[in-house]
Amino acid sequence: MRDLGLRYVRIGEFAWGRIEKAEGLFDWAWMDRAIDVLGAAGLKVVLGTPTATPPKWLCEKYPDILPVDIQTGQVRGFGSRRHYDFSSETYLVQAERITAAMAQRYGSHPHVAGWQTDNELCCHDTTMSVSPAALEKFRAYCAQRYGTIAALNAAWGNVFWSMEYDHFDQIDLPFFTVCETNPAHRLAYRRFASEQVVRFHDVMISAIRRHAAPHQWVTHNIIPPATTGVDNAALTRDLDFVSYDNYPLGFSDQLMAKASADEWKPFMRTGHPDLAALNFDSVRGLSKGAWWVMEQQPGPVNWAPHNPRPAPGMVRHWTLQAFAHGAACVAYFRWRQVPFAQEQMHAGLRRPDDMPAAAWAEVEQAASEMQLLGDLSVVAAKSPVAIVIDPVSGWVDDIERQGAGYRYDAVVFQYYRALRGLGVDVDFVSAGDAQLAGYPLVIVPTMAVVDDAAFDALQASDGILLFGPRAGAKTDEFSMSEGLPPGRLRELVPVKVTSVETLRADCGGSIAYKGAEYESGRWRETIEVGGADIIATYEDGAPAAVQAGRSIYLATLTDDAFLTNLLVDLCAETDVQITPLPPTLRLRRRGELTFAFNLDSVSARAPAPAGAEFVIGGSDIEPYGIAVWR
Amino acid sequence: MRDLGLRYVRIGEFAWGRIEKAEGLFDWAWMDRAIDVLGAAGLKVVLGTPTATPPKWLCEKYPDILPVDIQTGQVRGFGSRRHYDFSSETYLVQAERITAAMAQRYGSHPHVAGWQTDNELCCHDTTMSVSPAALEKFRAYCAQRYGTIAALNAAWGNVFWSMEYDHFDQIDLPFFTVCETNPAHRLAYRRFASEQVVRFHDVMISAIRRHAAPHQWVTHNIIPPATTGVDNAALTRDLDFVSYDNYPLGFSDQLMAKASADEWKPFMRTGHPDLAALNFDSVRGLSKGAWWVMEQQPGPVNWAPHNPRPAPGMVRHWTLQAFAHGAACVAYFRWRQVPFAQEQMHAGLRRPDDMPAAAWAEVEQAASEMQLLGDLSVVAAKSPVAIVIDPVSGWVDDIERQGAGYRYDAVVFQYYRALRGLGVDVDFVSAGDAQLAGYPLVIVPTMAVVDDAAFDALQASDGILLFGPRAGAKTDEFSMSEGLPPGRLRELVPVKVTSVETLRADCGGSIAYKGAEYESGRWRETIEVGGADIIATYEDGAPAAVQAGRSIYLATLTDDAFLTNLLVDLCAETDVQITPLPPTLRLRRRGELTFAFNLDSVSARAPAPAGAEFVIGGSDIEPYGIAVWR
Amino acid sequence: MRDLGLRYVRIGEFAWGRIEKAEGLFDWAWMDRAIDVLGAAGLKVVLGTPTATPPKWLCEKYPDILPVDIQTGQVRGFGSRRHYDFSSETYLVQAERITAAMAQRYGSHPHVAGWQTDNELCCHDTTMSVSPAALEKFRAYCAQRYGTIAALNAAWGNVFWSMEYDHFDQIDLPFFTVCETNPAHRLAYRRFASEQVVRFHDVMISAIRRHAAPHQWVTHNIIPPATTGVDNAALTRDLDFVSYDNYPLGFSDQLMAKASADEWKPFMRTGHPDLAALNFDSVRGLSKGAWWVMEQQPGPVNWAPHNPRPAPGMVRHWTLQAFAHGAACVAYFRWRQVPFAQEQMHAGLRRPDDMPAAAWAEVEQAASEMQLLGDLSVVAAKSPVAIVIDPVSGWVDDIERQGAGYRYDAVVFQYYRALRGLGVDVDFVSAGDAQLAGYPLVIVPTMAVVDDAAFDALQASDGILLFGPRAGAKTDEFSMSEGLPPGRLRELVPVKVTSVETLRADCGGSIAYKGAEYESGRWRETIEVGGADIIATYEDGAPAAVQAGRSIYLATLTDDAFLTNLLVDLCAETDVQITPLPPTLRLRRRGELTFAFNLDSVSARAPAPAGAEFVIGGSDIEPYGIAVWR
Ligand SMILES: [Zn+2]
Ligand SMILES: [Zn+2]
Ligand SMILES: [Zn+2]
Repeated sequence: MRDLGLRYVRIGEFAWGRIEKAEGLFDWAWMDRAIDVLGAAGLKVVLGTPTATPPKWLCEKYPDILPVDIQTGQVRGFGSRRHYDFSSETYLVQAERITAAMAQRYGSHPHVAGWQTDNELCCHDTTMSVSPAALEKFRAYCAQRYGTIAALNAAWGNVFWSMEYDHFDQIDLPFFTVCETNPAHRLAYRRFASEQVVRFHDVMISAIRRHAAPHQWVTHNIIPPATTGVDNAALTRDLDFVSYDNYPLGFSDQLMAKASADEWKPFMRTGHPDLAALNFDSVRGLSKGAWWVMEQQPGPVNWAPHNPRPAPGMVRHWTLQAFAHGAACVAYFRWRQVPFAQEQMHAGLRRPDDMPAAAWAEVEQAASEMQLLGDLSVVAAKSPVAIVIDPVSGWVDDIERQGAGYRYDAVVFQYYRALRGLGVDVDFVSAGDAQLAGYPLVIVPTMAVVDDAAFDALQASDGILLFGPRAGAKTDEFSMSEGLPPGRLRELVPVKVTSVETLRADCGGSIAYKGAEYESGRWRETIEVGGADIIATYEDGAPAAVQAGRSIYLATLTDDAFLTNLLVDLCAETDVQITPLPPTLRLRRRGELTFAFNLDSVSARAPAPAGAEFVIGGSDIEPYGIAVWR
Repeated sequence: MRDLGLRYVRIGEFAWGRIEKAEGLFDWAWMDRAIDVLGAAGLKVVLGTPTATPPKWLCEKYPDILPVDIQTGQVRGFGSRRHYDFSSETYLVQAERITAAMAQRYGSHPHVAGWQTDNELCCHDTTMSVSPAALEKFRAYCAQRYGTIAALNAAWGNVFWSMEYDHFDQIDLPFFTVCETNPAHRLAYRRFASEQVVRFHDVMISAIRRHAAPHQWVTHNIIPPATTGVDNAALTRDLDFVSYDNYPLGFSDQLMAKASADEWKPFMRTGHPDLAALNFDSVRGLSKGAWWVMEQQPGPVNWAPHNPRPAPGMVRHWTLQAFAHGAACVAYFRWRQVPFAQEQMHAGLRRPDDMPAAAWAEVEQAASEMQLLGDLSVVAAKSPVAIVIDPVSGWVDDIERQGAGYRYDAVVFQYYRALRGLGVDVDFVSAGDAQLAGYPLVIVPTMAVVDDAAFDALQASDGILLFGPRAGAKTDEFSMSEGLPPGRLRELVPVKVTSVETLRADCGGSIAYKGAEYESGRWRETIEVGGADIIATYEDGAPAAVQAGRSIYLATLTDDAFLTNLLVDLCAETDVQITPLPPTLRLRRRGELTFAFNLDSVSARAPAPAGAEFVIGGSDIEPYGIAVWR
Repeated sequence: MRDLGLRYVRIGEFAWGRIEKAEGLFDWAWMDRAIDVLGAAGLKVVLGTPTATPPKWLCEKYPDILPVDIQTGQVRGFGSRRHYDFSSETYLVQAERITAAMAQRYGSHPHVAGWQTDNELCCHDTTMSVSPAALEKFRAYCAQRYGTIAALNAAWGNVFWSMEYDHFDQIDLPFFTVCETNPAHRLAYRRFASEQVVRFHDVMISAIRRHAAPHQWVTHNIIPPATTGVDNAALTRDLDFVSYDNYPLGFSDQLMAKASADEWKPFMRTGHPDLAALNFDSVRGLSKGAWWVMEQQPGPVNWAPHNPRPAPGMVRHWTLQAFAHGAACVAYFRWRQVPFAQEQMHAGLRRPDDMPAAAWAEVEQAASEMQLLGDLSVVAAKSPVAIVIDPVSGWVDDIERQGAGYRYDAVVFQYYRALRGLGVDVDFVSAGDAQLAGYPLVIVPTMAVVDDAAFDALQASDGILLFGPRAGAKTDEFSMSEGLPPGRLRELVPVKVTSVETLRADCGGSIAYKGAEYESGRWRETIEVGGADIIATYEDGAPAAVQAGRSIYLATLTDDAFLTNLLVDLCAETDVQITPLPPTLRLRRRGELTFAFNLDSVSARAPAPAGAEFVIGGSDIEPYGIAVWR
């Protein structure tokens, strides 16, 4: 491993059954040996705590730790992984116990560099559960949040449909009703479910830190942040840094499942050109600086509907791409393809017969190229554009669909793609994070709920603010905002949303902007402009986008062309430099380096300035290749 | 409200929780005040009884009132609406208690004009339930209907597959079996489920009438009649008149979900040109004269996959359209958009900020135009064409699918569309209703079960009778009709259906009629003509439609063009006047008035006779506009 | 019946309720009479044992006999058929009891020719169940198979994800977990479920044989073998011969549900040209010689999404086709269309009004034509090509999908279609069956698991061996094969599969073979050739197919054109005679007779050699017709 250029090895993340054979009966010998062997080979160990896989004896002894499916009401049993309920006090005790035991044993081990908590929290739709434990805790959560049942009834508007409660123990989880439950009820449950995950995770982090030496860091390998169903900023707040598991092909296969063959085939072995980057930038945002790829796919995997081979060079490409987006380390999953059980078709760096797999040479190349990049320990600089994201607004969209063509994540991704196609680097900033100052351009694609912190951050920002539709639409308790949307955002842009319509994606209307016409559809708001300047209009002449001071309100979803042209204009206005790119070429800066990534099967010209000093590659970038210059 | 032209206000329909805070603890003060305020403003009050939303304390005390999902076997709990089981004796007692209490208090109140029972009975698939209460009652229903278990076994043909029972308490509800249950078993259950709803509703009506002054009428706001899963004639028999909740856009979005953008976009802001009319005519048929729109959508709603804005003018358009189809009153839902809970995106006449919404001016216009129409209190005249409908035949089709391209409601709708496209007014008459005499043309699109009353009504009719395929196919107990279909209808047309085939909708054959060729598909019967005249033939020369005396039997589903041409010929034969219309123009007569409705985004020419005296509009009808003439 | 040419009548297969009215209370009189009447009319009786439909009194008394749905966990109750659990000891006792009682009564009856066990075992997804009985038996099965829990843990690789067990009673059925369970766990369950069916069936066969006279044979009417979810060779091993229920139209409607109208319409009234033949050949393979059609569809049926009429002549066509493929008898289901219960729309030879149905004359014709064919009692000769099939490999594919475009049955069917289009007769041979010697060409389309018997049979064969991708991919316990796939098959062809990729069906690559290019997609393997000759290459030049000695390894799924051309070459190499045919013409030889089947709506030319002596028809075959020559 050392020869290949690897420096870290993760072990232990599912090993509870081998560490503790029965309650209190520990066997550390094999792990001691493994760490010694790895350390002797010059490698540092990342220890994964094994709480994602409680062993059978534990499930048998404490069956109340099992989660319950929100679709079917069935207990989700032992036999795969993640079979525990975040609300189970029993499991919290058990998970803390094994985590603390492990930390106690290895917390001062010289070869152990750091810790990974659990594994891919929330994966396989495990954030929500309808277990008895979840019910009990949700009632307590409501009592805590609202104080009195009258306050809860008022906050949720339970007078509607005679939904009022007399006391907290009457409240059920918002599932298995005749038609849809109160959105305020569901939002409270989503917040609760998120907090249960965070609480569990925080206890695990504490258990490690109690015993770990100061130099041992703690991280977690998060799944794509948009898929956790959790407030990721809260989830990762107590970590030293955040890690990400990068599987661009499978995630792209799912994302583009309905794309035509013409659209999909060029990217089936590279992944969507902006998807890995989206997750890299999201994780960097959570990590507030350096972050890791904890699992980089080194070949075909086993879990997507289709599992293609990466195009030649893509493992190197993804590796360097992660560094370009601010990674401090890229690890691969897995070392050797394991020939049995669920992941036997998941490629490794080595084949099941222990020969080097296809990615081997690419990892070697990437490792040696890393030397050329110089010191990357510096935290990535601020990007010129910030996109503000917000878990609560994502839950609002899940809960109140209103139009089948509107999806929180898709809306955010559309802005991100437009910016990346202009060669612009992007930061994701959590709503409420007080770090918006200094960004020339701040985009709020969709933020239905604007709480105090979010509002203050927006007000304290000093760039142009671009709001998409549904901004400020809801109060914190899922009512329509006071005085109509965008509610308190009216202090920034004086519009009133008087009506919303949603349309089939193929039945849209149009929008006129600076003399050209674009598509407007899926979600369209009727607005009163309140004195703002109209910058775009619907086909019937009604205002579709307005500007007031440094704030712009766009009242509709549009096609990509409009977003691109609007962003070109806003970048010009804010002196953000753009480099319009073909779909198969992407740029990313880190420190004084500029990285260019070619996703095409033919060579591409690097958009380097005259006199650029190439660190890797040259102005002619090979298929799937990379160039880096100063 | 009065100023806008409104005369009635409905309140109370979900207010149980505010009326009765705990069993027997009533609070009428707020409702007393509300009625006084409205009455003082010159408005009459329609009181909705609140049985659609039993409060939480009631569900907690009597959990056996909850329905059980027929798909999953899960209890459908508190937290939305309609969470009660029609078979629950407990709930019947409770619902009668609150209804009687309300009627007792307001039954002689001068400002209370009438009553609405419950709200949208059967909505959200609540007609069927697999609760213990339903099981117990179904067994009693079977004992009552069949007398002995031997009679039931014989009636259902339970000798097949050893399905015989020894006693009634062995009978289960027809769900959760290995493959399909006996269709006779399922039909019995459907009849039972329908009767449970009717029984519940009749008890509610009685509870009101016991206390209400004679001038107070009782109505119910029915959902689209084809979607209740109930014998609507029985359900509404004891009402003074029937009301309908008119949501053309959402219902059309669902109906045309698979239509192409070209087909759908012209109608996405008007609704399908014949869908609201279909429901208006259906409800008029149930009401046997005057009827109400109790809820007219005044803007975008919240519950369809896509929720567009109505086209400008459509709220006025729908209002006058309802009157043209015989309505006595059109009410809007809702007055003011409520900014919280499940319906916060459902538009009202006033916005959440209490300003007039887009529909306001249209309602004002419609109210003033109503004055021009003169006295509409007269019951709508008989239309020239009757379409005979029958709930049992709809259930037969649900139960015995036989071909995926055959749907009871779609078959009925196809005839209706063809007639409406010819400018012909249509009445819907329930099978068995003795009112067929006097119709020049009587259409029976699909009536699998012909009971005595239905047969007598058909025989007593004096117009041309047109039967579609599957007519008379089944006995009352879901066996094939004696001597092959159409069974006793052979007294009217002497055919024998010797075989049925069903085809994919895109793999049809053809039918020749008067020298032209049309599509025949989805459902095709082979018939022996028994001496009737052959009027259309299949591509292989076999008979596809025959006439005998005044009866026509059409053995296949066809394309729209054939139906139109056949109906043109039958209208000519019966002196029914036709006015072929484009898809975006519709006519409807009421008394001496003729209404023309333009669903196009451009002006249309009113097909008024020379010398017509225009009451509203003129011969050039504006986009989405209306003309009315004498 | 006798006049029509019928010789056998099946009765009793669902008659438990009429035979035994309550436990131990038998009524044989009606069956005695029925057999006497039929016998007196010169007909022989096939007695169906009634275990597919336990009566209600039995289910009520022994509710533990009911199966439990693997999707929902719901008990599958009384009210249709097949409502019993193969693992229930209670039911085994009851089923054996009724079967033995029937055999005792009629085991020496002169008119009873033989017995049909149960009816369509496994139909309606009944092979798998999650009943308590299944759980208990599965634990015992595991204990039996693996001996110690340590051995099971090792065999399944349970160290992965901490899935190890401490004792057998901890093992659950592999359902209702958070994500996918261990494939080894699922394979064990599939084997177990198969064995439960076989065990049940073997007990029934024994119960009959204990009492039946030696001349009475025992058969079972199997559903399409690919749909049982059972090791069909084991299931049918103890039968005298195997029977098949032939419903070409409904099965084709399901198979081609996604085909375009252009593809489907030509075959909607004939069925897919190779589907009935596939099942005939499969059943002949199981039967090891003569076999029966126990149910031939005589007209439209009731259970498919669409149920067309057979094209004129097709009932005769299917009848003679069955004989061409080796049948000893063709029976029709049913005699008379029953006018009530679930199958009232299922055509019979006679209509519900007891008149001859459309098929009557065709059956008469077929019966008289049978006389012309001479003695068919001889066992069908070996075909020149064998396709090797294997239930375990089918389960492997169900369990480890890896690519949505790869389906075991579809892969097998593609080879079969290619061969049939070349006019080649095909035998299906079960893997492990020692009958491969003598076949010039042996095709193994997909055999993931190669056990000792299968390997020995392949090695003992003497023809060309063609392996498709995934051959030898897995061990018997669902690990990757030792030394990479194809594992021990490397003794036959020295390749190593180093990587697998799966692609969307519309995003494939290409393969070059003998200078032409073909599609390669869905499943593609990267191979090391190990000294074999490369005969086809991928678009990047990598090997896609190799030959070593008499073995060929094809590493990818391809289009039909490639398979056809490869098979043309292999047939030439092995002197297998081919006759390329249009899609609507098929050939089949039996003894010295050659049958040609025209599926076209126009006449076809029989590809008979000059001087052929026609036994039925002539060189010009009528639409949907047949020619037979020597
Ligand atoms: Zn309580
Ligand atoms: Zn009983
Ligand atoms: Zn135990």
